[in-house]
Amino acid sequence: MPELQRARLSPEERRAQLIATGVNFLADHSLDELTMDELARRAGVSRPLLFHYFETRQGMQLAVVIKARDSLLVFTEPRLELPPRERIQDTLLRITQFVQQHRGTFYSLVRGIASGDPAVRKVVDESRELNAERLRDALVELDLPDTPMLRVALRSWVAFAEETLISLAIDRDTPADDVVRFLEAALRGMVSATRELNA
Amino acid sequence: MPELQRARLSPEERRAQLIATGVNFLADHSLDELTMDELARRAGVSRPLLFHYFETRQGMQLAVVIKARDSLLVFTEPRLELPPRERIQDTLLRITQFVQQHRGTFYSLVRGIASGDPAVRKVVDESRELNAERLRDALVELDLPDTPMLRVALRSWVAFAEETLISLAIDRDTPADDVVRFLEAALRGMVSATRELNA
Repeated sequence: MPELQRARLSPEERRAQLIATGVNFLADHSLDELTMDELARRAGVSRPLLFHYFETRQGMQLAVVIKARDSLLVFTEPRLELPPRERIQDTLLRITQFVQQHRGTFYSLVRGIASGDPAVRKVVDESRELNAERLRDALVELDLPDTPMLRVALRSWVAFAEETLISLAIDRDTPADDVVRFLEAALRGMVSATRELNA
Repeated sequence: MPELQRARLSPEERRAQLIATGVNFLADHSLDELTMDELARRAGVSRPLLFHYFETRQGMQLAVVIKARDSLLVFTEPRLELPPRERIQDTLLRITQFVQQHRGTFYSLVRGIASGDPAVRKVVDESRELNAERLRDALVELDLPDTPMLRVALRSWVAFAEETLISLAIDRDTPADDVVRFLEAALRGMVSATRELNA
C-alpha cells in the first residue's frame, strides 16, 4: 500500500514531502539528530531513496533549513502598503502567528544557528539579517538615522525576539497580541539605547 | 622532550591543560568540530590518553563547556557590597572585559547552546539562567516586581547581550565602557517593556 501511495507522487512532490518530514522532526530534536536513518524511518522510505534525493546528510539538512527559512520569510513579508509603524506591528504579529502554528519550522531555524555546517549557518544567518533589514527599512522611514550601531542593535534584537517567541509564544502559549506588544516595546527601548553609542 | 614535559604534570594538571586546549579551539570552531582526534592533535597527546581522561567525546566536550561556564561565572560574580545599580554596571563591565580577553571561553558557551547533546545544553542553560537571576536580584532590590514576565524578559535579554557582545565587544572591538552603556540602556528599555504584559 505505501508503495502505491508513493507511486502517485512526482519526484518534486516526494522531495517536498521528505523535507517537510525533516522540518517537523526539528520541533523536538536538534539538527545533529536529523540523520538519513532517522528521516528514512520517519518518512517510511529507504535510505538509498534519500541519498538519491539529497546525496549527503549535509545536503538533506541544508534543504530542510532552507525550506524553513523560506516559509518564514514568505509568510512574514512586510506589507509595504502599510505605514511604517503599522507595518512593524503587522509583521511582528504574522511572525508570532507563524511561530505558534509552525513550531517545527521555527525550531529548524533556531537549531540551525549553531550548526557545525557553515552552509547551514549561512542560510539561517541570511534570515536573521533579512528580518533585521526589514525592520531597519521601517525605522528609517520613521526618521531614525541608519547607523552601524542601529544595525548591530537590530541583529541583537532579532536574537532577543527569537528567545521571546520560544518562551512566550511557544512554551507559555501567550496570546499573539500580547507577544507583539512586548516585542514592540522592547524594540522601542532598544532603539533608544543606540543613542548611547551614536552620540 | 614533550614526553619529559608531560611527565612533570600531575593528572589533574594534565586534564586541566587538555580542557584549556579545547576551550581555545572553540574560539574559531563549532563544538561539532571538537573531536578526540582534533584535540589529540592540538594538545600533542595520543588518542588513548584522551580516552583515559574523558572516556567519550561527549564527556570531553562537556568538560570543556563546564570549564568555560565556570570561568565566566566566577570572573563575573556580582560584588554584593555595591548598591544594585552600580553592581549591574560593574557586572556588565566585567562580563565585557572577560569576553574581550577570553574569546574562546565565551564562544564555547555560545556554541554549546545548540549542541545536540542535552547535557551540554543544560550546562550552558544554567549559565544563562544564573546570569538572568543575578540581574533579577539587583532589579528587585531596585523595587521592580519579580513577575514571571520579568524572568522571561531577562532570559531574552541575556540572548540579546550575547549577540551584542559578539558583534560589538569581539567583532568591532568597541571599548568596554561603550558596550556597557548600550547594554544598560537596552536593559532599561526591556524592563519597561515588561509593563506591557504585567499590566
